[in-house]
Amino acid sequence: FKKTGVVNAYFPLFIAKSFLVKVYEHVEGFSPELAIVTIAGGKELKEPLVVRPTSETIIYEAYSRWIQSHRDLPLLINQWANIVRWELRPRLFLRTTEFLWQEGHTAHATAEEAEERTKMMVNIYKEFSEKYLAIPVIAGVKSESEKFAGALRTYTIEAMMQDGKALQFATSHNLGQNFAKPFDVKFLDENGESKFVWQTSWGLSTRSIGGIIMTHGDDKGLVLPPMIAPVQVVIICIFTGYEADKEVLEKAEEIKGELEKNGVRVKIDKRDKRLGEKSYEWERKGVPIRIEIGPKDITNDSVILVRRDTGSKEAIKINEIVNKVKGLLEKIQNKLFDKALKLREDKTKIVDSYDDFKKTIENNNFVLAHWDGTAETEEKIKQETKATIRCIPFDSKEEQGKCVYSGKQSDKRVLFAKAY
Amino acid sequence: FKKTGVVNAYFPLFIAKSFLVKVYEHVEGFSPELAIVTIAGGKELKEPLVVRPTSETIIYEAYSRWIQSHRDLPLLINQWANIVRWELRPRLFLRTTEFLWQEGHTAHATAEEAEERTKMMVNIYKEFSEKYLAIPVIAGVKSESEKFAGALRTYTIEAMMQDGKALQFATSHNLGQNFAKPFDVKFLDENGESKFVWQTSWGLSTRSIGGIIMTHGDDKGLVLPPMIAPVQVVIICIFTGYEADKEVLEKAEEIKGELEKNGVRVKIDKRDKRLGEKSYEWERKGVPIRIEIGPKDITNDSVILVRRDTGSKEAIKINEIVNKVKGLLEKIQNKLFDKALKLREDKTKIVDSYDDFKKTIENNNFVLAHWDGTAETEEKIKQETKATIRCIPFDSKEEQGKCVYSGKQSDKRVLFAKAY
Repeated sequence: FKKTGVVNAYFPLFIAKSFLVKVYEHVEGFSPELAIVTIAGGKELKEPLVVRPTSETIIYEAYSRWIQSHRDLPLLINQWANIVRWELRPRLFLRTTEFLWQEGHTAHATAEEAEERTKMMVNIYKEFSEKYLAIPVIAGVKSESEKFAGALRTYTIEAMMQDGKALQFATSHNLGQNFAKPFDVKFLDENGESKFVWQTSWGLSTRSIGGIIMTHGDDKGLVLPPMIAPVQVVIICIFTGYEADKEVLEKAEEIKGELEKNGVRVKIDKRDKRLGEKSYEWERKGVPIRIEIGPKDITNDSVILVRRDTGSKEAIKINEIVNKVKGLLEKIQNKLFDKALKLREDKTKIVDSYDDFKKTIENNNFVLAHWDGTAETEEKIKQETKATIRCIPFDSKEEQGKCVYSGKQSDKRVLFAKAY
Repeated sequence: FKKTGVVNAYFPLFIAKSFLVKVYEHVEGFSPELAIVTIAGGKELKEPLVVRPTSETIIYEAYSRWIQSHRDLPLLINQWANIVRWELRPRLFLRTTEFLWQEGHTAHATAEEAEERTKMMVNIYKEFSEKYLAIPVIAGVKSESEKFAGALRTYTIEAMMQDGKALQFATSHNLGQNFAKPFDVKFLDENGESKFVWQTSWGLSTRSIGGIIMTHGDDKGLVLPPMIAPVQVVIICIFTGYEADKEVLEKAEEIKGELEKNGVRVKIDKRDKRLGEKSYEWERKGVPIRIEIGPKDITNDSVILVRRDTGSKEAIKINEIVNKVKGLLEKIQNKLFDKALKLREDKTKIVDSYDDFKKTIENNNFVLAHWDGTAETEEKIKQETKATIRCIPFDSKEEQGKCVYSGKQSDKRVLFAKAY
């Protein structure tokens, strides 16, 4: 974000209810999402406060005061914040009453610049997801029904979880002047003419943690991609209760020091627990590499190295640890990405008949199918199969075909799937 | 924090009111601080929710479940969070209804370990404040009246603002077993005996931003210590509307690249505004060094370099910029610290009579005076002079003397001041 000129700022948690409602009263299902403070300072408030369900209102009200001239543009602000949307059917990390996110809000002098920023951010999310989280995603544009109601266009990245269902990973909205007008966010251009700004907003939430778990995890617990693992290597000391334990600990510290010098994040587990118990705990926590070291290993000048992703074990010489670990971290990172990508490729089907469509969706696949572009068809497919249009992929090629549902003309396949 | 073994975690914003009140009902003035959610999901809640005014309750309830054995100890957790305490007389950054902080919460097997952690954290805050924020602080222990009600002992760092008043900068509490008992946080020790844990908590808030402003700021605006300035050097392009402007921008980019390679955080201001207007803006924002570059400077192979703290300007050769800037950033950092320290030293008085005490406090000084150790004396001094005991400094030497108020025996001077 920072490299693209975005700065961080923080806006209030509470928003006056009357102000928020004025803006969102037309949005269906919005009000039941709100958590409302009615008592504070020991008494009933005259004006109830809403715990922010999103910050457009409070941020754009500020923008209407901050932006005066074309010289104040572009305004590129990001906020890291907690958000509250009352949730009756919570699902850990995916849908919770409180969640954490970042929300970017930018204002521009031209429609072109806003569109460029909207695309830039969805690409940044794609890069972040694929390079850091090892989660392959499909980037594209949302259909009219699936886009953010306040946006001209919503771009999205969609990931496939191990069960074949889609997870919307992050979105980037081109808001056009839809908020600038009600919030009166105007600027004087070079010719002294008063114009509304063009805006974008974009966000990624703690939902992505759910994505990491559901993309890489296995029956033993978490599997963390090395790039984001807080601990990349855990050195588990095997103690015997004899004099040699001291040497084990010293050697562990030495290995830790060497690895840290090479930029590896390391932790030593020197707790007085059994090896099995300690291994199990770090396995569950998804640490990419475990190094087991005991008195016998020191005698052999070697350690046991265990990969979290494959479970494979090998003995390696102590003086080879740094090179081995560095290579392996990279290998695991790539392996996790490749595995997830292979699953997605295997479970992405090109489908041309509605019968096939229904079967393929029922078996939890991604489906690339022709669609006639109407909300009616989209809605009927959703009702009949639970599949939604995840996006119209950026890389979907021009191709004449017939809508899988209505048989009408279509010039592009879109991505359908059941989604979290 | 991380280097000392602390890990980050996040706990909920909302705490059931009945649960919170049970714990704090005995704390005076606590309830009026609360903001309470009574409506959510479109209806009245059966159990109102409090927006966290601090997280002891929710964290220690979790600890009582997470901690079973001595092997689970120490538990060292930190949370970065927003906090709400209803404020009728807000003061920007110092006292606001919502503020941001980090709150550390640790649990230990022994009293000694908890005490060690409490001291460690106050020392970390001192180092952070002095080394990064260039704010000299006095570390010490709070009196019984000034300590956190739930703590055995509260350690604090206190800074002097430019007006001579004190700002409590961060605190570290040894909670003893005061929370372990009501929350039933117990562990089985090596001998299988059930024992209560020993706890600490410690925090630093956005109040420290107020501290930075009031310690270093001047009539022109912010003065940021280089170590924490988001932008350490701003390169202001002087444009003339002629061909040479392109060269100016190129040279600015080149200088930026060189500085960034050397770890300096740089921004180029290439906006089409007048030099004065741009300089004023960056001055107000406290950027430590401004570099002004225009066509004439390029001809001379030099630039103008302006220090925010002193306002001094000098022309320097372009090939000397990196060394000059690196040296200057360090110099400014030290200068800001030294200046603040000198002010504090000049305005810290050793006082032995109550008449002197009153005059010295009235003129907004720190006062080192003898105190008889009683809450009564402390309270009377506060009522009569508005001065409170900021702390009993760690480095206060044993010295026989008489209480400045009561004339009773005292073996140590304590720090009095009016405080924010």
